[in-house]
Amino acid sequence: MALLVWVYLLKRMALIIFVMRYNVHKLLLTILFGVGVLSVMASVKKLEVTSPSGGIKVEFFLQGKGEAAYRVLYNAKPVIETSTLGFDFQGEPSIKEGLAITSSAITEFNETWEMPWGEQLKVVNHYKQLKVTLAEKAGKKRTFSLVFRVFDDGIGFRYEFPKQASMGKVVITDENTQFKLTGNHLVWWQPGDWDIYEHLYNTTRFTDIDAISKRNHPNLAQTYIPENAVNTPVTMKTDDGVYLSFHEAALYNYAGITLKVDTTNLMMQSELVGNSKNIKVVTATPFNTPWRTIQITDRAGELIESKLILNLNEPNKLGDVSYVKPTKYVGIWWEMHLGKASWDMASGKHGATTENAKKYIDFAAKNNIHGLLVEGWNAGWEHWIGFEDREGVFDFVTPYPDYDINEVIRYGKEKGVALIMHHETSAATQTYDKQLDTAFAFMQKLDVHAVKTGYVGKILPKGEYHHGQYMVNHYQRVLDMGAKYKVAINAHEPIMATGIRRTYPNFIAREGLRGQEFNAWASDGGNMPEHLTIVPFTRMLAGPIDYTPGIFDIKLKPWKPNNQVNNTLAQQLALYVVLYSPVQMAADLPENYEGNPAFQFIRDVAVDWQESKVLNGEIGDYVTIARKERNGNRWFVGSVTDENARTLTINLDFLDAGKKYTATVYADGKDADWDKNPISFKIENFTVDSSSVLNLNLAPGGGAAISIVPVK
Amino acid sequence: MALLVWVYLLKRMALIIFVMRYNVHKLLLTILFGVGVLSVMASVKKLEVTSPSGGIKVEFFLQGKGEAAYRVLYNAKPVIETSTLGFDFQGEPSIKEGLAITSSAITEFNETWEMPWGEQLKVVNHYKQLKVTLAEKAGKKRTFSLVFRVFDDGIGFRYEFPKQASMGKVVITDENTQFKLTGNHLVWWQPGDWDIYEHLYNTTRFTDIDAISKRNHPNLAQTYIPENAVNTPVTMKTDDGVYLSFHEAALYNYAGITLKVDTTNLMMQSELVGNSKNIKVVTATPFNTPWRTIQITDRAGELIESKLILNLNEPNKLGDVSYVKPTKYVGIWWEMHLGKASWDMASGKHGATTENAKKYIDFAAKNNIHGLLVEGWNAGWEHWIGFEDREGVFDFVTPYPDYDINEVIRYGKEKGVALIMHHETSAATQTYDKQLDTAFAFMQKLDVHAVKTGYVGKILPKGEYHHGQYMVNHYQRVLDMGAKYKVAINAHEPIMATGIRRTYPNFIAREGLRGQEFNAWASDGGNMPEHLTIVPFTRMLAGPIDYTPGIFDIKLKPWKPNNQVNNTLAQQLALYVVLYSPVQMAADLPENYEGNPAFQFIRDVAVDWQESKVLNGEIGDYVTIARKERNGNRWFVGSVTDENARTLTINLDFLDAGKKYTATVYADGKDADWDKNPISFKIENFTVDSSSVLNLNLAPGGGAAISIVPVK
Repeated sequence: MALLVWVYLLKRMALIIFVMRYNVHKLLLTILFGVGVLSVMASVKKLEVTSPSGGIKVEFFLQGKGEAAYRVLYNAKPVIETSTLGFDFQGEPSIKEGLAITSSAITEFNETWEMPWGEQLKVVNHYKQLKVTLAEKAGKKRTFSLVFRVFDDGIGFRYEFPKQASMGKVVITDENTQFKLTGNHLVWWQPGDWDIYEHLYNTTRFTDIDAISKRNHPNLAQTYIPENAVNTPVTMKTDDGVYLSFHEAALYNYAGITLKVDTTNLMMQSELVGNSKNIKVVTATPFNTPWRTIQITDRAGELIESKLILNLNEPNKLGDVSYVKPTKYVGIWWEMHLGKASWDMASGKHGATTENAKKYIDFAAKNNIHGLLVEGWNAGWEHWIGFEDREGVFDFVTPYPDYDINEVIRYGKEKGVALIMHHETSAATQTYDKQLDTAFAFMQKLDVHAVKTGYVGKILPKGEYHHGQYMVNHYQRVLDMGAKYKVAINAHEPIMATGIRRTYPNFIAREGLRGQEFNAWASDGGNMPEHLTIVPFTRMLAGPIDYTPGIFDIKLKPWKPNNQVNNTLAQQLALYVVLYSPVQMAADLPENYEGNPAFQFIRDVAVDWQESKVLNGEIGDYVTIARKERNGNRWFVGSVTDENARTLTINLDFLDAGKKYTATVYADGKDADWDKNPISFKIENFTVDSSSVLNLNLAPGGGAAISIVPVK
Repeated sequence: MALLVWVYLLKRMALIIFVMRYNVHKLLLTILFGVGVLSVMASVKKLEVTSPSGGIKVEFFLQGKGEAAYRVLYNAKPVIETSTLGFDFQGEPSIKEGLAITSSAITEFNETWEMPWGEQLKVVNHYKQLKVTLAEKAGKKRTFSLVFRVFDDGIGFRYEFPKQASMGKVVITDENTQFKLTGNHLVWWQPGDWDIYEHLYNTTRFTDIDAISKRNHPNLAQTYIPENAVNTPVTMKTDDGVYLSFHEAALYNYAGITLKVDTTNLMMQSELVGNSKNIKVVTATPFNTPWRTIQITDRAGELIESKLILNLNEPNKLGDVSYVKPTKYVGIWWEMHLGKASWDMASGKHGATTENAKKYIDFAAKNNIHGLLVEGWNAGWEHWIGFEDREGVFDFVTPYPDYDINEVIRYGKEKGVALIMHHETSAATQTYDKQLDTAFAFMQKLDVHAVKTGYVGKILPKGEYHHGQYMVNHYQRVLDMGAKYKVAINAHEPIMATGIRRTYPNFIAREGLRGQEFNAWASDGGNMPEHLTIVPFTRMLAGPIDYTPGIFDIKLKPWKPNNQVNNTLAQQLALYVVLYSPVQMAADLPENYEGNPAFQFIRDVAVDWQESKVLNGEIGDYVTIARKERNGNRWFVGSVTDENARTLTINLDFLDAGKKYTATVYADGKDADWDKNPISFKIENFTVDSSSVLNLNLAPGGGAAISIVPVK
């Protein structure tokens, strides 16, 4: 029998944290209660920590020859079976065995913080934490801690390496964090591509995951899938009806993660994104890894409602971010994807002209849209995709001669439409790094406070990948520069979001998924109807998505006879609610909106929210989300289905009791069908209250969008 | 047996008429063919003339002691039985008996002319004319002609008095033109009020007409109903299913007509509007009376399609009227009727402020609306309704101090919204006459090209009435001044339109009916649902109507708890098509449109038309009109019903064959009802072609509006 000595030190303390909102400063009182510090004097068989309500339990223990291991239980049943933890280093022995627990502590933390913009105003961050400090019993006696934070909707854990004499500079060649599954779950996955997240999601049993088969997609500008791994967030459902989603939080100065798939052992193991030298991370103590996260729920929608990944990030470091304005925007963008215009000037159909920009500004100003993205405004687009030598081509201050940026900004200001800058780096990161200060100072001079960045193509310098440590740090430098010059960043071809928008609220959105543009030209037919019923439960768990919804000319006439958007028009509307982003594009050509009463929904829909509720949903089938606007009393509801028609019954009990509202329902027409009749819609209005129930009839590939406005 | 000698002179000639449209000059070739000149050498028993197709026949003859008489037959059956013609004069014997036919001529005329703006581009003007010249056989031997023009959709006839020694100055005390009906028809009538047309229509059998009972309506600013007469247009339906509508055309320097009702003899007789001295018309030879018109059809909708009244007017005398721009407009207007704002400044809630005007301009600019009416902009409104001494109060060049008219015009121009001037005369016609040149020169200086005039209250000088000769000439002076300064006139409290817009195309619209504002405050409950199913077949036959449709806040909350608009929201949309006017107000407060997808119809709907078709309709029950825009290929359809719900089947065979269109149907919601649930609507879209059929479900008091746009 082992000797267990427990010492509990219980104390209560109060922390006062100032959380800055972009327009108000609110004082939040957070209470750290029930702090237990557990000191272990001898070998310990098993440390346990549960979520605040007790539903989730993490067990940590040493096994075999002193190997760090953990297990996760949900409602007393394992959801992660015994999985081990460790590292491989270049020129140093691995951290794997021979470990001892030198101390451990369980604490409980409960705060409510406010998002300066987001899916909701207030976020509860309530967890119990187990911090276990380990040390090698022999050799270099390296030490590190494992910190598990257990929430009611999942867990996060990370490695924390203190500064130590025997471990200075660190070159990680592998992080060996395991996730051993308890069954052959149904998985919504995309390949563990080191260079892009723009794959369709696949729905298979775990043992049928075959990332290798996804290599060489003809429509991806860059792709690298070295082995059978998946990108995160990856979401699965057990046969018991438990939903699990794996991702990471607070990724700084480290490589992005993929999860290697061992179909024999139902095991996933971290495979960090490396470079061509097979180095994953170069760092030095002290350092922490990102949090490895597992969201665990028995309701699919709770995955979306969960703020676990944000909670694992540090509070706002930037203070006042009032320059970050949630906004709808239009852009000189879709017309390039249609082939109507071009980014470059040599083509003779340059899109980014002063005149065209003014056309979009006029349209935006008329329609409650306050942003304008102009792509192809700066010289260099003649030497872009398809060229190897892309360094030194673009700068970010020289407009094409037919684009008067000062005039566009002046005209936009007069009409209440702010320019969103565009920086396509063509993945020539060294050029961009060199010009970064100049580029951002230029925006400051122009009073421009948002930029869409792009990294199309293979990363330069060669041998680096979009999701590796080099790029994580590059994206961070851009973010820091944004903070310096008060510019919000919307990164395309980004590293996946890991919740750092909590700490850097100028990181407004990212692409990082197969966006709308694939519908314009992908040779595989584009984004099939199920795509957007999977994205909310996978990609969207990471953070805001710049999907660019709102295509009304579903059949892309006359530009793209062989392509189409694979949703109904009503679903395109629903996306403004379903897909969260503080920047939402009205992506179609203005002329395709003119005259369509369904456009009223885009005019009206909010982009910043007081609260959000997932009313129903099954991954890959359908989902319905209701959101209440900030600084107002309107609600908006979006509902999308896959290729199957279905009727969803929506209970409006989220409305204020006793209040009357007008619900305007933008739904699929009776004969709507994403392929055969995608633009058939109907708009109906009803007087509703909190006791009302709405039946939504969704067409194949269809959706519904609802605005719910208090009756005056 | 009488001797009949017929001499036919047949010749063919071509006339080339230049018709100027505001943006194109079109050459129209019109052909006058089949001209017959009939000379009568001896006494004639009966002269006959038929319509070009032969369906309508007019017989003219002398009866009794040489009394001029006529009869009208439709499809060989009398629709007007023997009716006599004549005049009473002041200080001169009546023209009544002792007449002889001195000559007669039958001619045929066929031209196609173009409207510079209107319900349709091309108008066929095809009639046969019988001109009978009569002379008194004894006494003063006065002479005059009766000219009958017989169209396939009705007739017009007038008296033409040549210059003659025995008849210089003429003071008419009565024109005794009879219309003897063939049965006790069902009649849609309003009382023969000399001062206002803002009565509800009544639906009774002819013998139940009781105009006297309509005296003293509490909500009319002025009213004078001297006897049991009706105003025109008055429309009726025989038990044989023939529709008749009586009115007049080309009213110049003459009194407006009412029709005295003789229920015993089923007879109507002209009763000109006079003055307090019982003088009807003061004139001198040569002069013509207006045309007395009877539209005759067997389909109610054909009354609306008929251009008989316009055809009886002379061609455009103004030439280029490109300053007359069909337009939708908003206005600082409804908020006064709601009591939210006031015309006057002393009230402390002055509506016509620079700031408020800019708010409306911003709203208009965003919504494809290009006009702004501002009422209450000029000093004087503190001394308006309710004052006897109204002369000298208003001028038309002095803004209130909180209204910067130059800035409003400048701001509007910048945004593409033109100011519509407002001249409320408070019926102080001498003040207005004196200031007319100054007022219109002021508009020219401001580059303003439209004015809404108003004549609320009893006419000054006392003893004159709105519809008498004095006012006919006053309205004409205003119209002539408009032509001089290139200003289009939209007259409220006008004389009824008589088709003079053909000759003076700067007469764009009139009120002359019980408009929308009665819904805001009338103590009788406002315009009942049937009102707008009668108006198209009565008032609208006269010409364009400034009804000011588009109230979305049907229940007028929170302003008017005891009033409401008595239609559904969908019917309010339908009115933009059903009620023809080249100026259509979006009358509600901007905030009542914001966010409502149904507003898209108002944004879209055209205001100038290539062609118009009445698809169905029964007077007082329902009507559906389809109109095709000018300079485009969109069609718009409006359908309204009375207090009864009904399903109307619309055949789209008017569309171009083989072409695909998107039809967006703005219809009543399933549970819509003008009283119980007036804002319930649904919007659906369908792909349609010329073989399509749409079923429209109209709610009680409801309607439907459809836009039909070619698929690109």
